[in-house]
Amino acid sequence: MAEPILFFFEFSSPYAYIAANLIEPVAERHGREVRWLPVSLFHVWRAIGVTRDNLPRQKVDYMRRDWVRFAELEGVPIATPRTWPLDAKLARLMFYRLAATDEALARRFALAVYHRYWGEGEDVTETSHLAGICEGLRVRPAELDAALVDGAAKARLLAAGELAVGHGMFGAPWFVVDGETFFGADRVVHIDRWLSRHRK
Amino acid sequence: MAEPILFFFEFSSPYAYIAANLIEPVAERHGREVRWLPVSLFHVWRAIGVTRDNLPRQKVDYMRRDWVRFAELEGVPIATPRTWPLDAKLARLMFYRLAATDEALARRFALAVYHRYWGEGEDVTETSHLAGICEGLRVRPAELDAALVDGAAKARLLAAGELAVGHGMFGAPWFVVDGETFFGADRVVHIDRWLSRHRK
Repeated sequence: MAEPILFFFEFSSPYAYIAANLIEPVAERHGREVRWLPVSLFHVWRAIGVTRDNLPRQKVDYMRRDWVRFAELEGVPIATPRTWPLDAKLARLMFYRLAATDEALARRFALAVYHRYWGEGEDVTETSHLAGICEGLRVRPAELDAALVDGAAKARLLAAGELAVGHGMFGAPWFVVDGETFFGADRVVHIDRWLSRHRK
Repeated sequence: MAEPILFFFEFSSPYAYIAANLIEPVAERHGREVRWLPVSLFHVWRAIGVTRDNLPRQKVDYMRRDWVRFAELEGVPIATPRTWPLDAKLARLMFYRLAATDEALARRFALAVYHRYWGEGEDVTETSHLAGICEGLRVRPAELDAALVDGAAKARLLAAGELAVGHGMFGAPWFVVDGETFFGADRVVHIDRWLSRHRK
């Protein structure tokens, strides 16, 4: 069995959101699993000595237009979030709390959080924002409070961040396919073509 | 007749090199012309107040691998240039000198320079490096010396740089399609799909 594709993502990244909607069909086409690994990009940057990008206005203006157009071209719903930047600590911890017993459920949770934030523009910071998502997944909203003090979930989150740094991550989304790294939602098509050429 | 696609490029950019090999078939499919416009990215950056990116080592390492893989996936020859960074002033001026009377010839010149530098890794800085390319295009190599003191060519180069800045350029390749801007070789597929959706 080939190794799973590692998919490191940050909830606040619109490009990682787009990639989250693109990677599974590509992986499936090549008989691969995807291991979803939310991380704090801020922590990754701190670990590699990068301060928050001081982007020129031109680049910020372009990106705001680009990610909307990218999402529209892919048929992925896109909105302007009410809250920015996003503190996604709770979503990350809840993901790893769920993943401890049910990875598929954790993935559905991540997609639901992404859809609420980037698809609908709603806030996903607090337990009150995520309670409805939990109910939709038949998870007790009280689990959110438990996630905030779940030492094992926190340990998994920190380990994912270290794993990301070890794999050279400097931005999101970050993919690792058989040791080959890919950065950006626009590289999902490269992963598809690369896997076609390097069949195991 | 629809407006041509503007294609701003920098000879030293491997991604602009890849894009130069991808854009024409896309434009042709949509009945569009491409207006090739080499610029000095350094001058564009200076105009918008950007100092040369202080990229983390992780990003530099990734990009060196990424552009090779990208080129290989597209079937575009790729080499490691002997000379880096490249001073492409002569190539830019020669392009605009040729374009004054023959845009198609200027484009073939640009592609030949790109192929020599990024496809074969050879230097393209001096007149001696470009003489063979000129001969291959049936252009007298003495035109290269003339290009260096061609005031009209210089004026066109500067105007292209101003046009690029006016269109929000901050990196190469930079495309403008009916006022919509696209950055990066990976966005050529977006241009293709965007034109399909917005037929004139």
